[in-house]
Amino acid sequence: MVAHRVFIFRQLFEPVSCTYSYIVGCSASKKAVIIDPVLEMVERDTKLITQLGLDLVYGINTHIHADHVTATGELKNHFPSMHSVINENADGKADIFVGNNDVICFGNGRLEVRTTPGHTTGCTTFVNHQHRLAFTGDTLLIRGCGRTDFQGGSPKMLYESVHNSIFSLPDDYLIYPGHDYSGQTVTSVGEEKQFNPRLNSGEQHFIDIMKNLKLPHPRMIERAVPANKVCGVYELMDEKLKKEICNKAKAA
Amino acid sequence: MVAHRVFIFRQLFEPVSCTYSYIVGCSASKKAVIIDPVLEMVERDTKLITQLGLDLVYGINTHIHADHVTATGELKNHFPSMHSVINENADGKADIFVGNNDVICFGNGRLEVRTTPGHTTGCTTFVNHQHRLAFTGDTLLIRGCGRTDFQGGSPKMLYESVHNSIFSLPDDYLIYPGHDYSGQTVTSVGEEKQFNPRLNSGEQHFIDIMKNLKLPHPRMIERAVPANKVCGVYELMDEKLKKEICNKAKAA
Ligand SMILES: [Fe+2]
Ligand SMILES: [Fe+2]
Repeated sequence: MVAHRVFIFRQLFEPVSCTYSYIVGCSASKKAVIIDPVLEMVERDTKLITQLGLDLVYGINTHIHADHVTATGELKNHFPSMHSVINENADGKADIFVGNNDVICFGNGRLEVRTTPGHTTGCTTFVNHQHRLAFTGDTLLIRGCGRTDFQGGSPKMLYESVHNSIFSLPDDYLIYPGHDYSGQTVTSVGEEKQFNPRLNSGEQHFIDIMKNLKLPHPRMIERAVPANKVCGVYELMDEKLKKEICNKAKAA
Repeated sequence: MVAHRVFIFRQLFEPVSCTYSYIVGCSASKKAVIIDPVLEMVERDTKLITQLGLDLVYGINTHIHADHVTATGELKNHFPSMHSVINENADGKADIFVGNNDVICFGNGRLEVRTTPGHTTGCTTFVNHQHRLAFTGDTLLIRGCGRTDFQGGSPKMLYESVHNSIFSLPDDYLIYPGHDYSGQTVTSVGEEKQFNPRLNSGEQHFIDIMKNLKLPHPRMIERAVPANKVCGVYELMDEKLKKEICNKAKAA
């Protein structure tokens, strides 16, 4: 038995899509959740969860990703009592749908659900008040934010989500994002309010920036979105997609 | 002014050599140190330190790296009051030499120096008892350890360093390593005692493993070691090395 701190917390990185996944757990009950796991990293994550002796109860997706396939489907094969979770506005299938102000409980652990649309319609920020931190997915990144030009994205909505639901948290709350492309791991509400070059000034300024990003079409979107709409559950995919996802998993 | 928690802590990643750097600071005085900064990431790190309003007092190298050039030289140009720090056994030049049981102070922040040779002769582990964590450099990695076949390395010494100076810490102490190649960010003393496949059993077992790794010669060693022996201070390098390091910095 490994001795744990009161709060079990692991940040995990997937280098191809630069995605961060998080394991958050209650040390008393060993109940834990994983946020935004990546299909290619299932072996690493399964091993770690098992070594830590955790009882994985929820596999949470902050939104339907366009740049990688979620591992919440594959993890259900390893942890049969795990339930997949997604926002009720996300246009996806999952075991459990959550909405604004819901609270996800795992032992003594708590995650408050804040629906923060803008990057996608069903984007969610999960706030842990016990340790004064938030998992913002792609709604708020370190000195940046997710793009707003597909999957029902809207710069106006993203701006309002960040200002109403994230920047309204105390300045010292830590922000753990869904991605980082520069090797940074964490930021804080106060820092982003002051230094986020997109979001630290007015709404029209933000909308102008987002409308002029001229980003390429996401390379993975045709494969990732349909797979992620069923939280990565293999049985729920059509035959063509099953083949693609299966080959992908084998190549990893 | 950005509101801070009591403890300022940032883990930063450099993807080419998979190196972790750390900023650790005291929120009352804003005095801070950086551990194992990487030359190519100076711009990112300088910007972050400046935005956080930190007074960077020490640039600490856990050892003389063979896989990347330290940024402690270049950072002195940006933060003139910063002093470079290395272990007195490291066969390097630095502003300040530390030895076993020394304590590095920065405001209310403390780092206890534990000399942990084995990967190199001058390897150091820095322990922060206030927050129950240790920076182990390449002495102890997540489920692994640094190689022991050059720079005065010795499997016997590394085994003894880990068991006497790191595994003797309480099980819940977090371990922040100098590298990780699998996207993991942190581990704990208890976990490594139980699950580190090299170090969780006897000394002879460990020595046999380390003697049979058959690793390639470190690609960067001819350039990195001489530069790191002077803590990356440009003025102290010979002309040939200056040119190499300078081109490297420009290419980054
Ligand atoms: Fe996304
Ligand atoms: Fe090293």
